[in-house]
Amino acid sequence: MFSTTASAIYLDRIERARASMQRSGIDVLLVSVGSDLPYLTGYDAMPLERLTMLVVPCDGEATLVIPRLEAPRVVEHEGVFSLRPWGELEDPVAIVAGLFGRPRRVAVGDTMWARFLVELLGHWGSGDTEYLRSTSVMNDLRMRKDAAEIAALQAAGAAADRVAAQLHAGEIPLLGRTEAAVSADLSARLIAEGHDIVNFAIVAAGANAASPHHHAGDRVIVDGDLVLCDFGGTKDGYCSDITRCVTLGAPSAEIAEAYVVLREAQAAGVAAGVVGAACQDVDRASRKVIDDAGFGEYFIHRTGHGIGMEAHEDPYMVEGNALLIEPGHAFSVEPGIYIAGRWGMRLEDIVVATDTGPLSMNFANHELVSLG
Amino acid sequence: MFSTTASAIYLDRIERARASMQRSGIDVLLVSVGSDLPYLTGYDAMPLERLTMLVVPCDGEATLVIPRLEAPRVVEHEGVFSLRPWGELEDPVAIVAGLFGRPRRVAVGDTMWARFLVELLGHWGSGDTEYLRSTSVMNDLRMRKDAAEIAALQAAGAAADRVAAQLHAGEIPLLGRTEAAVSADLSARLIAEGHDIVNFAIVAAGANAASPHHHAGDRVIVDGDLVLCDFGGTKDGYCSDITRCVTLGAPSAEIAEAYVVLREAQAAGVAAGVVGAACQDVDRASRKVIDDAGFGEYFIHRTGHGIGMEAHEDPYMVEGNALLIEPGHAFSVEPGIYIAGRWGMRLEDIVVATDTGPLSMNFANHELVSLG
Repeated sequence: MFSTTASAIYLDRIERARASMQRSGIDVLLVSVGSDLPYLTGYDAMPLERLTMLVVPCDGEATLVIPRLEAPRVVEHEGVFSLRPWGELEDPVAIVAGLFGRPRRVAVGDTMWARFLVELLGHWGSGDTEYLRSTSVMNDLRMRKDAAEIAALQAAGAAADRVAAQLHAGEIPLLGRTEAAVSADLSARLIAEGHDIVNFAIVAAGANAASPHHHAGDRVIVDGDLVLCDFGGTKDGYCSDITRCVTLGAPSAEIAEAYVVLREAQAAGVAAGVVGAACQDVDRASRKVIDDAGFGEYFIHRTGHGIGMEAHEDPYMVEGNALLIEPGHAFSVEPGIYIAGRWGMRLEDIVVATDTGPLSMNFANHELVSLG
Repeated sequence: MFSTTASAIYLDRIERARASMQRSGIDVLLVSVGSDLPYLTGYDAMPLERLTMLVVPCDGEATLVIPRLEAPRVVEHEGVFSLRPWGELEDPVAIVAGLFGRPRRVAVGDTMWARFLVELLGHWGSGDTEYLRSTSVMNDLRMRKDAAEIAALQAAGAAADRVAAQLHAGEIPLLGRTEAAVSADLSARLIAEGHDIVNFAIVAAGANAASPHHHAGDRVIVDGDLVLCDFGGTKDGYCSDITRCVTLGAPSAEIAEAYVVLREAQAAGVAAGVVGAACQDVDRASRKVIDDAGFGEYFIHRTGHGIGMEAHEDPYMVEGNALLIEPGHAFSVEPGIYIAGRWGMRLEDIVVATDTGPLSMNFANHELVSLG
């Protein structure tokens, strides 16, 4: 199968990757499982012990080394890459190493299985060869979402918003159910609203919400609980990610007051996500609001992460990240307040920086909605 | 939380890993996402950009370096490993590198993300340090399943068998449905029968079955089709994997005759999986039957893969693997015959080698069942 429109997109991306390699003196880019591969080729490899690897020399044609069993799944793009299927009795790492001479600088895909890099080290030794993360080549491309990618993020965000609206409308029963049951319900609704995959559906009730990455368990939701729901999936290759909190019955004055702070902190982070600001400025903006209200010690994580084909990717909104925000950068803004043993709250939207300001992917009600 | 029984299991495993390291002159074992981590600690890390890494020096206490956000999920085991939670502004790779001096030989977890190994190379350079796959340490432990692990494989196999029995009984509608719909049905039944996760549910009808890793798609199943179903999941940490074929209506004489060959080839492979045989002997036994019947060129993959906590792991039943089968080795025996553009068939059971012969995990009907 050939698809010429798609071919033009992948050819352009590979050429831009190659230009980045030439600027950085990188001889070869090696991409295996993960999002760089479908970004550059349209092909999404399963994580298998049988190696799939795209080899992009800085000055030659790209080659997709792939198990012969998987080759029928590849949509070829003429002039973009050639296929090198390998049989069950071949050594795929030797095939990769044989495609070019001993490199001086190699960029290695972030989520490649380390076993393959260990084997490549055996081929090249390591004394004279320098290894870099593929982000050094790919970040300039991947972080700047184009119009089609932003549209895909909007569609994923809208699908997640519809599930959040169902939560707010009381259409998802909470009282008397376990966190795990509600998590399964949220997951089914993410799929029903158009996601292809559910990436996570955190449901944390009461004191469990004080652990930001709590796994939904057998805790039964009871009256008076604050329930934190953080869920997202992948739709047409791009991710959603949203967090909303609800209470069963009216919130305590303490929680209501803290939520006002959280709401303001989240809005401040979004407002700071402008082109030309540093990533850490987004973190600082949210954190300042929470610090000033006296909750600083209870905001125990960074403010956000990049998002796109991966649920978490560059750029990260964290102190120390001086990277300047560019048009097309997409990231979460998700401050939280966590009181160990008692309660936790977080509020999260996905935002894309544009020349006309931050563009939110999420419009679901930002207030602390009381149910039942 | 402490669990002393579990602690004894993990302590024993880490001590055996350490003994293996000492025999091989390995200074340190580094384990990140993947199955080695829960095997050694009981903790299953999510694949995240935030590093989780178990550091096992050959002569010191093991340390689990873990994002502070994830630390509440760890069940600690006193005397087995200590926790080193890291905060959002720390560099976890520097923490790992600081736990011991510059190593001479490092064993690296197979499925660790390459980005972390690239960063470790930056700390240690690579000229004087030798990097090995963690399988060099872990395979002796992981491949030999103990009684509890074999019981877990049996329970997973029995759950998969129940789904196969439903397929054979005609309880899973096929005629007029898409492969994707049947795949979703198989997946739901794997969960209903006790699996925690579905790892795959290949449904390939007619000519699609000639691609061994075909993804279930929108092909509608029609009368006369041979339908290949290859499905499995994880139950209580251990995997199932089974392949059965059915026909809609009576099979053609050609298919019926080929299936007799396949049935015999699969049985020959199982019978060859005895303690003391080489892994490649299993492949040779199955392949000989298919070769002798004139179908050799249509059996385009190895005969099997190891299985346990991972759906595919060592040992592999493939020509060239002279490893001797030991008691507790668990693997698939799954020959196939694939006629491009026309049809494909495969028959698969999981087998554990024991001192009294091959012990099958699967008892579902091995015949080509005709439905409708």
